Amino acid sequence: MAPPYRVLLHNDNFNKREYVVQVLMKVIPGMTLDNAVNIMQEAHHNGLAVVIICTQADAEEHCTQLRGNGLLSSIEPASGGGC
Amino acid sequence: MAPPYRVLLHNDNFNKREYVVQVLMKVIPGMTLDNAVNIMQEAHHNGLAVVIICTQADAEEHCTQLRGNGLLSSIEPASGGGC
Repeated sequence: MAPPYRVLLHNDNFNKREYVVQVLMKVIPGMTLDNAVNIMQEAHHNGLAVVIICTQADAEEHCTQLRGNGLLSSIEPASGGGC
Repeated sequence: MAPPYRVLLHNDNFNKREYVVQVLMKVIPGMTLDNAVNIMQEAHHNGLAVVIICTQADAEEHCTQLRGNGLLSSIEPASGGGC
């Protein structure tokens, strides 16, 4: 099985909160309103939120689409870490 | 300046939602109820949430305290990634 990747959403100071929620729901399959609002709020509070964990190919596609809609996104391998 | 670290919260199937929120507020300085609920919900939905971004020493301390209260937590360097 391919190792999982994370799609991350980074906070920005130019997109409105409602727009971020709309883009998340448009771009990420199965994204609910509740989850989109949570992700937007966590990116706002903490600077960063995990959008979804998926295959690398899907992560690249989602990230490209988020960026194409003006959001700040990155991907990274979902490796575990210790304390 | 020391490179920033992320403290991550992983979903688990044994701690109640209210307990997770309580531990986050007890352990993480400045954690609000709203943010704690968001983090708990995002870990529940996505399997993983970013709790806070801070120095490595603080991240290790927060992670140890979260684990000491029975939550699943890890830390990692907050490096950026591309699409």
